[in-house]
Amino acid sequence: VWTRLTARYWRGPPPELLAYGDPGGYLPLRESIASYLTTARGVRCEAEQVIIAAGAQQGLDLAARLLLDPGDVAWIEDPMHPGVLGALTGAGATVTPVPVDEEGIDIRVGMRNAPRARLAYVTPSHQYPLGVTMSLSRRLELLQWARDAQAWIVEDDYDSEYRYSSRPLASLQGLDAHGRVIYVGTFAKVLFPSIRLGYLVVPPDLVDAFATGNSLIIGHAPSIEQAVVADFIAEGHFARHLRRTRALYSTRRQVLLEAIQERLADRLNVQPSEAGMHLVGWLPPGVDDRLVSQQAAERGVVARALSLHYGEAPPRGGLVLGYAAFGPAEIRGAMARLASAVEASM
Amino acid sequence: VWTRLTARYWRGPPPELLAYGDPGGYLPLRESIASYLTTARGVRCEAEQVIIAAGAQQGLDLAARLLLDPGDVAWIEDPMHPGVLGALTGAGATVTPVPVDEEGIDIRVGMRNAPRARLAYVTPSHQYPLGVTMSLSRRLELLQWARDAQAWIVEDDYDSEYRYSSRPLASLQGLDAHGRVIYVGTFAKVLFPSIRLGYLVVPPDLVDAFATGNSLIIGHAPSIEQAVVADFIAEGHFARHLRRTRALYSTRRQVLLEAIQERLADRLNVQPSEAGMHLVGWLPPGVDDRLVSQQAAERGVVARALSLHYGEAPPRGGLVLGYAAFGPAEIRGAMARLASAVEASM
Repeated sequence: VWTRLTARYWRGPPPELLAYGDPGGYLPLRESIASYLTTARGVRCEAEQVIIAAGAQQGLDLAARLLLDPGDVAWIEDPMHPGVLGALTGAGATVTPVPVDEEGIDIRVGMRNAPRARLAYVTPSHQYPLGVTMSLSRRLELLQWARDAQAWIVEDDYDSEYRYSSRPLASLQGLDAHGRVIYVGTFAKVLFPSIRLGYLVVPPDLVDAFATGNSLIIGHAPSIEQAVVADFIAEGHFARHLRRTRALYSTRRQVLLEAIQERLADRLNVQPSEAGMHLVGWLPPGVDDRLVSQQAAERGVVARALSLHYGEAPPRGGLVLGYAAFGPAEIRGAMARLASAVEASM
Repeated sequence: VWTRLTARYWRGPPPELLAYGDPGGYLPLRESIASYLTTARGVRCEAEQVIIAAGAQQGLDLAARLLLDPGDVAWIEDPMHPGVLGALTGAGATVTPVPVDEEGIDIRVGMRNAPRARLAYVTPSHQYPLGVTMSLSRRLELLQWARDAQAWIVEDDYDSEYRYSSRPLASLQGLDAHGRVIYVGTFAKVLFPSIRLGYLVVPPDLVDAFATGNSLIIGHAPSIEQAVVADFIAEGHFARHLRRTRALYSTRRQVLLEAIQERLADRLNVQPSEAGMHLVGWLPPGVDDRLVSQQAAERGVVARALSLHYGEAPPRGGLVLGYAAFGPAEIRGAMARLASAVEASM
């Protein structure tokens, strides 16, 4: 399907898709995204509020540079994605890691440790990497804080498409009545990483600033790829692709859970999570996750150490295990080898 | 040819071209560019020194952010491209416009007005927008200054591919023996603007910093487009495309010069320039180029006011006239309408 959609444009590309485009992105794609997010994620927006970025990382970089001045304080969930830390510090921000509990980011700790923060970066649907879903009361508390502090919330909804055993929670953006939330999404996880297309949904009064900022920093994302994705969504392929991969990843997740139960039951305590493309498992106290990760790598298994994602001291060691890209036999073989790696590290 | 090369990858994309790629860019493309620049532009580099950017603007943004701290002073040629000013000020630099004479940027004025500059942004092959070629003595003077001041030179070679009546001068980078030059190039002008692919050539000891910076800011450019461009160059299509468009644009330039001679001889004094995709014409003293530009727009002709490109007061009004995208009849018709626009503005 992708080949056919791509060839359609290249055989006779419309001149406007070869020239410089709208710095906010190709309008039909912005319309497709707005319509998808309204239905699937409860996001409240018009197409003009959708700003296409050359990947979620670029969108986050743009948001950090536009919303923060050097020296401004930003909250980041702890544990975190290292790329997010890079984007925030790259914009000159002073970053305060705020712990995550079973309800999500602990806003009271944030207010105590960094009361003057100008921005909070959060992953409410599926905290990265722990997989926690932010509770409704925390969401309301966070929105209230942002309103009172006149601060910004960046909501990264990076893999909200994949939720297996419960109905997806609507986005935080949809609860925001005061224009404090910048919503970030990406096609890297649901289509393929090298496409380098992501998007922001910004409050109406920030649209011009984000489009202008984009044009000074990067211009815009490649137009023909934007047109192909717009058609992919509008013609129903995206919804079918999501249904198909959701079923596939759900099976793979189940295989991983069973393989851990069989091979690593007393060594890896799986963090509850109903969504995403990876699971986190906690190691027994005292076991060094970086050593396990290294031992796993020597056995051909990628199992990132959870401690590398923490700004403050981690409660204990753990591993980040991606499953979406692997078939059942690969997953079972990898868990057998991971069991040997854990054994060798104790 | 492009459709065929693109379809080749989409029919059965190699898995590594769908996953996250090298933050410095797709190696075969970096090799193709290094080989092209060595032969065509006298650039001295290995493939590893080529960093692929999502457009020249993004490359410039990356360079400005990595090489400058907030408050650092940067020289910019005056007149200038507004996007360059945006990238430099966006990185927190204090920008000093330095006048351009018939030999290029006036380094002595720069040294007098801003002796502590950390970076100079220049367009030696074909100054934007005036079209002046920087003389050899100025090039050597600039390199000597950068060496003495431990400053950086950003050489933007944005349309060096198009030179009509003389042999192209080699790049400034090729004269640099002390690793002070960052070379910037783009495919937007020679292929098509919406492709969003550019590149930097950085000194060997900056390669890691630029690749890491790229990965924190943007990840990398889309992989399959990079692979298509790599093949387009390696299979000889790029060289043929350049030969064909060079002949075409040379004809169009000649048509424009003749049409100006016929319709605007006493009203538009064409700035000498042997290269590029546009010409600059000076208006009679006292004529407001913004008014002419507006009158031209009302007659369906895009003729940007030169005064908009100046940081300091322009010597007189002028117009920037792009010709590469237009056939002879369009150019002749546009000059007739431009003559009427000038008439209406006097």
